[in-house]
Amino acid sequence: MPSKAKSQSGSKKQWMNNFLTDGKSMLLAYDQGLEHGPSVDFNDKNVDPSYIMEIALKGRFNGIVFQKGLAEKYYTGKVPLILKVNGKAALAKGEPVSRQNCSVEYAVSLGAKAIGYTIYLGSAYEADMFQEFGRIQEEAHDAGLPAIAWVYPRGAVIQNDTSREIVSYAARTGLELGADAVKIKYTGDTDSFSWAVKSAGKALVFMSGGPKAPTDDAFLKQVKGAIDAGATGLAVGRNVWQHPDPVKMADYLRQIIFERKAVEVMQK
Amino acid sequence: MPSKAKSQSGSKKQWMNNFLTDGKSMLLAYDQGLEHGPSVDFNDKNVDPSYIMEIALKGRFNGIVFQKGLAEKYYTGKVPLILKVNGKAALAKGEPVSRQNCSVEYAVSLGAKAIGYTIYLGSAYEADMFQEFGRIQEEAHDAGLPAIAWVYPRGAVIQNDTSREIVSYAARTGLELGADAVKIKYTGDTDSFSWAVKSAGKALVFMSGGPKAPTDDAFLKQVKGAIDAGATGLAVGRNVWQHPDPVKMADYLRQIIFERKAVEVMQK
Amino acid sequence: MPSKAKSQSGSKKQWMNNFLTDGKSMLLAYDQGLEHGPSVDFNDKNVDPSYIMEIALKGRFNGIVFQKGLAEKYYTGKVPLILKVNGKAALAKGEPVSRQNCSVEYAVSLGAKAIGYTIYLGSAYEADMFQEFGRIQEEAHDAGLPAIAWVYPRGAVIQNDTSREIVSYAARTGLELGADAVKIKYTGDTDSFSWAVKSAGKALVFMSGGPKAPTDDAFLKQVKGAIDAGATGLAVGRNVWQHPDPVKMADYLRQIIFERKAVEVMQK
Amino acid sequence: MPSKAKSQSGSKKQWMNNFLTDGKSMLLAYDQGLEHGPSVDFNDKNVDPSYIMEIALKGRFNGIVFQKGLAEKYYTGKVPLILKVNGKAALAKGEPVSRQNCSVEYAVSLGAKAIGYTIYLGSAYEADMFQEFGRIQEEAHDAGLPAIAWVYPRGAVIQNDTSREIVSYAARTGLELGADAVKIKYTGDTDSFSWAVKSAGKALVFMSGGPKAPTDDAFLKQVKGAIDAGATGLAVGRNVWQHPDPVKMADYLRQIIFERKAVEVMQK
Amino acid sequence: MPSKAKSQSGSKKQWMNNFLTDGKSMLLAYDQGLEHGPSVDFNDKNVDPSYIMEIALKGRFNGIVFQKGLAEKYYTGKVPLILKVNGKAALAKGEPVSRQNCSVEYAVSLGAKAIGYTIYLGSAYEADMFQEFGRIQEEAHDAGLPAIAWVYPRGAVIQNDTSREIVSYAARTGLELGADAVKIKYTGDTDSFSWAVKSAGKALVFMSGGPKAPTDDAFLKQVKGAIDAGATGLAVGRNVWQHPDPVKMADYLRQIIFERKAVEVMQK
Repeated sequence: MPSKAKSQSGSKKQWMNNFLTDGKSMLLAYDQGLEHGPSVDFNDKNVDPSYIMEIALKGRFNGIVFQKGLAEKYYTGKVPLILKVNGKAALAKGEPVSRQNCSVEYAVSLGAKAIGYTIYLGSAYEADMFQEFGRIQEEAHDAGLPAIAWVYPRGAVIQNDTSREIVSYAARTGLELGADAVKIKYTGDTDSFSWAVKSAGKALVFMSGGPKAPTDDAFLKQVKGAIDAGATGLAVGRNVWQHPDPVKMADYLRQIIFERKAVEVMQK
Repeated sequence: MPSKAKSQSGSKKQWMNNFLTDGKSMLLAYDQGLEHGPSVDFNDKNVDPSYIMEIALKGRFNGIVFQKGLAEKYYTGKVPLILKVNGKAALAKGEPVSRQNCSVEYAVSLGAKAIGYTIYLGSAYEADMFQEFGRIQEEAHDAGLPAIAWVYPRGAVIQNDTSREIVSYAARTGLELGADAVKIKYTGDTDSFSWAVKSAGKALVFMSGGPKAPTDDAFLKQVKGAIDAGATGLAVGRNVWQHPDPVKMADYLRQIIFERKAVEVMQK
Repeated sequence: MPSKAKSQSGSKKQWMNNFLTDGKSMLLAYDQGLEHGPSVDFNDKNVDPSYIMEIALKGRFNGIVFQKGLAEKYYTGKVPLILKVNGKAALAKGEPVSRQNCSVEYAVSLGAKAIGYTIYLGSAYEADMFQEFGRIQEEAHDAGLPAIAWVYPRGAVIQNDTSREIVSYAARTGLELGADAVKIKYTGDTDSFSWAVKSAGKALVFMSGGPKAPTDDAFLKQVKGAIDAGATGLAVGRNVWQHPDPVKMADYLRQIIFERKAVEVMQK
Repeated sequence: MPSKAKSQSGSKKQWMNNFLTDGKSMLLAYDQGLEHGPSVDFNDKNVDPSYIMEIALKGRFNGIVFQKGLAEKYYTGKVPLILKVNGKAALAKGEPVSRQNCSVEYAVSLGAKAIGYTIYLGSAYEADMFQEFGRIQEEAHDAGLPAIAWVYPRGAVIQNDTSREIVSYAARTGLELGADAVKIKYTGDTDSFSWAVKSAGKALVFMSGGPKAPTDDAFLKQVKGAIDAGATGLAVGRNVWQHPDPVKMADYLRQIIFERKAVEVMQK
Repeated sequence: MPSKAKSQSGSKKQWMNNFLTDGKSMLLAYDQGLEHGPSVDFNDKNVDPSYIMEIALKGRFNGIVFQKGLAEKYYTGKVPLILKVNGKAALAKGEPVSRQNCSVEYAVSLGAKAIGYTIYLGSAYEADMFQEFGRIQEEAHDAGLPAIAWVYPRGAVIQNDTSREIVSYAARTGLELGADAVKIKYTGDTDSFSWAVKSAGKALVFMSGGPKAPTDDAFLKQVKGAIDAGATGLAVGRNVWQHPDPVKMADYLRQIIFERKAVEVMQK
């Protein structure tokens, strides 16, 4: 099984250090209110950002992902903040585009320790997002913050956004454009995902959690596969905060990510 | 009946305080001259912004909404001003877009205590408005003013702009993008509207008054439903200044909003 | 007959004072070289901007309207200058759009005492012009100059640009966006035009002269109708400088505008 | 025969003086490498900008027209430089647009004594070029340089770009937008071209040389016709540097332009 | 056989000196990860930018071409850096456009000694890239760096991007827009390529290496043909780092470029 002990040794600055524990990381994502709408993903509990903030703390996450509005009104400062500076809603059709709605300066004032930005690779508006991310990456670095790229292949030309070729292209795009870490979808197996990790080079790879998996084990095995492939960690939302016991799920994830345990032998 | 005692406790700043009385609010909206045209909504009396200014004062409104031109030529300073910094006319077809026509700095020079901005959620130009609102929100906060988002789902993809899903999405979008308050349409019942209020989180919710209701009671019951759902208040225009006795109507509304009276038992 | 003694009393600054005589005004427009082309409107005499400058002076006009190029090369300083800062030619088809070609700062350096800008209400590019006018209006006011909006309903959605509804919408749009004066087309009768004047509120209304009328009296009666409706005055071009005796025509117009004479009793 | 002794007397500044000899001028144009491509217009000799620079000097031209790249690498300073700050290649189809590729500041640093800019009148992108030229014209004047507009009617709506109406519209557009000189196509006869010259007012008119004429005399008669119509001079490229003896051709042109000789009596 | 000893003598500054050895040059290109995707061009070895950095050093290249992300994380400073400041991925269809994703200032901070930029000549977005390159070229020169243009004819209108006419147009476009060097495709023979070199004037010409040739000799003969035509050198990627022995291939190339050896007689 291909595997890679990924590190940033050799890079000039360990940009992502604030989000790493022994080189690994587990991030809590919560931008679904904007990206999907509250009625698709939320219930009476997890619609409340305070509840998510609490999970991030109790679940000992390495970081939490918020849009500016949530950061401004709910962020408590106890878990490192990744401010997502662009976002789109799910209603509009046509080629996807997501534009900056929060300045890096403002993100810093809200306590951000990293900047997040989504790039829709393959979209007819791809060039606009490459350019915008390029500028934001520089502003982030100038402010001492890493830039994390959500690279999602999407648009009319994209047939299969989890193929080895497409996911590795997403990973590489992040590296080439200066991302310190990329959030990409899982390809489905360790072998192909390890090519995506290699393509990302010194940009750290975070597997995107995706929609709630049918069983805990199904999800945990995906995470294990990504970690085995050399991923630095996971950016997870729904599989944690839609879980009946988010803190327990976080505990399972930590065993996989930080202790490299197999799903079959982990402590439940 | 679901209900929520909504407050901003826990947020870092009570941005909307200038517009609240015991946590509730009643705003007078008057941007219809631009949005609909004078011949649709106005008569010889209410075509005159001075008349509206007078109603705002006599009706003891918590704020008045003007475009820059009206603020510059008619605002008397006696009621807190919300300056609407974008707007569109009703003639052009195609996907809706409304762009900034007043700088935050200029709004402040006109006496504004809050900035208003319309976002057409679901429009093909949604990304432009997200971005523009994002910048304006920061400029407003830098100037010490709250940012209020009129979030109106509109465009070819929107089938029903008062459904529970769509209205709650509008509310949530405002919260995520940093609005301190959102103005949204009423869903028709307290139950569904309370989901929208929950989705808005710490962003205060103002029910949009909409066109003149057939009877006073019909309108008042809508307002009561929204308040019961946890809304902070109402931004009303036509149902007040098209009313034969706007001050009396304002009195009815105050009983519902501030005294939580039922329509059936209010003092008429 | 509806009529309105229009004044700016109550507004904070009498922005248009430089262009008023006892609250009334007569402006000489000369942007047709760009808007229509020289071969459509000009002959060997009136193709020369010096000739127009001379008419403005001898005809005792309250202001003259030039594009930057004419102001720079022909303006003598003897009649207050309104600098038209956008303009388009007549050749291109498609939805109309006119963009700024002269900065406010440059206009001031050329001696401008007011800024003029055309908005094509109803055009697919309406939002761009609303935004641009909004910025220019602020720059003008910051420089101490009034902003005058030429509001012309135009584009595929506009069926009849002189109807009561459309003309009053144009007038109101100017007011809402911060224009100190609007130049709009005549509706054809005093009654309907007085609604447009009311809709414009404290923004002064200038009737647009339009193409050369078949007879002097036909044109003068239109002007009289607009003045009776409460218009501040007239911005006239072709009906003066295409006239065999422009100074005489100016004299007729002054009798109507400033002395409120009826066409039937004026001194010829 | 209509004729006009054109001068800038009365204008506030003789912007074009650096390019005039007794009020007349002969400019050498060399932007064809970009506009048409080297294989269309050039041979082994005239592909070399040094050769053109030499012709400009030996042919005693009043100015030479270069894009920034040529100015930077070939300009010797011995002939006044007009820097063409926009340009397009001939390959792309669709409505023509040419955007600024050289800042005025950079042009000045390269030794420019005038700024050149092409406007495609009638193009769907006309508004963009009007706006860009407007800004450039101001920057040029602020730097003490004249702005010369190449006004070329082009695009799907243009049927005949040498008609009296279209050429005079081009000339007038330059004047209205603040050009100190316009480069326009010849209409074919003195009478119609004199209307274009009149339409240009105090903006000096340069006839555009166009493609290599079949005979020297054919070309020289066109130039004579333009000069008789009141043109200030000629901006010529191919008819000089594609000529077997460019310096001799320049000598013929000088006789027509500066000595007003007829083609039939000039010294050959 | 046409040949040209190309030099920059006569130009004001030897912009490209950092990349020349006796007036000739060999550059290592590595932007394929973004332009083509990792799965198309890379294997387990050359997917790693460190491996490429090592080849650049051992192969004694005159420069290495990186996107910002690679430069930031892998550049060692031992070979002069050309920072490619725009780039696009291969997935999106439609007219090609590549926008700036790295500022010149940031490129300098990463150690760049030259700025690279791709222009898609003939694309519907050509005007945007001309304009962007124009600005970047000035910023590069202001910072003391040369600007290198990758000029690639591409888009629906381009039938054959290696014809004499098209390649020479690409070369000339670079010169006209101020490029100090152009990277263009080989036309297939020395005769036609020498016309491209002539068209480029004082802008140095780099042949684009293109995809891996079937045999070493096939590729080396192309390079020899370009050098004989007057090219300054080669910007090569895949033919070196996809080669089983990249350093040996680099040695062959040096013999052709710097020693002008024929393929038949070179030392293998």
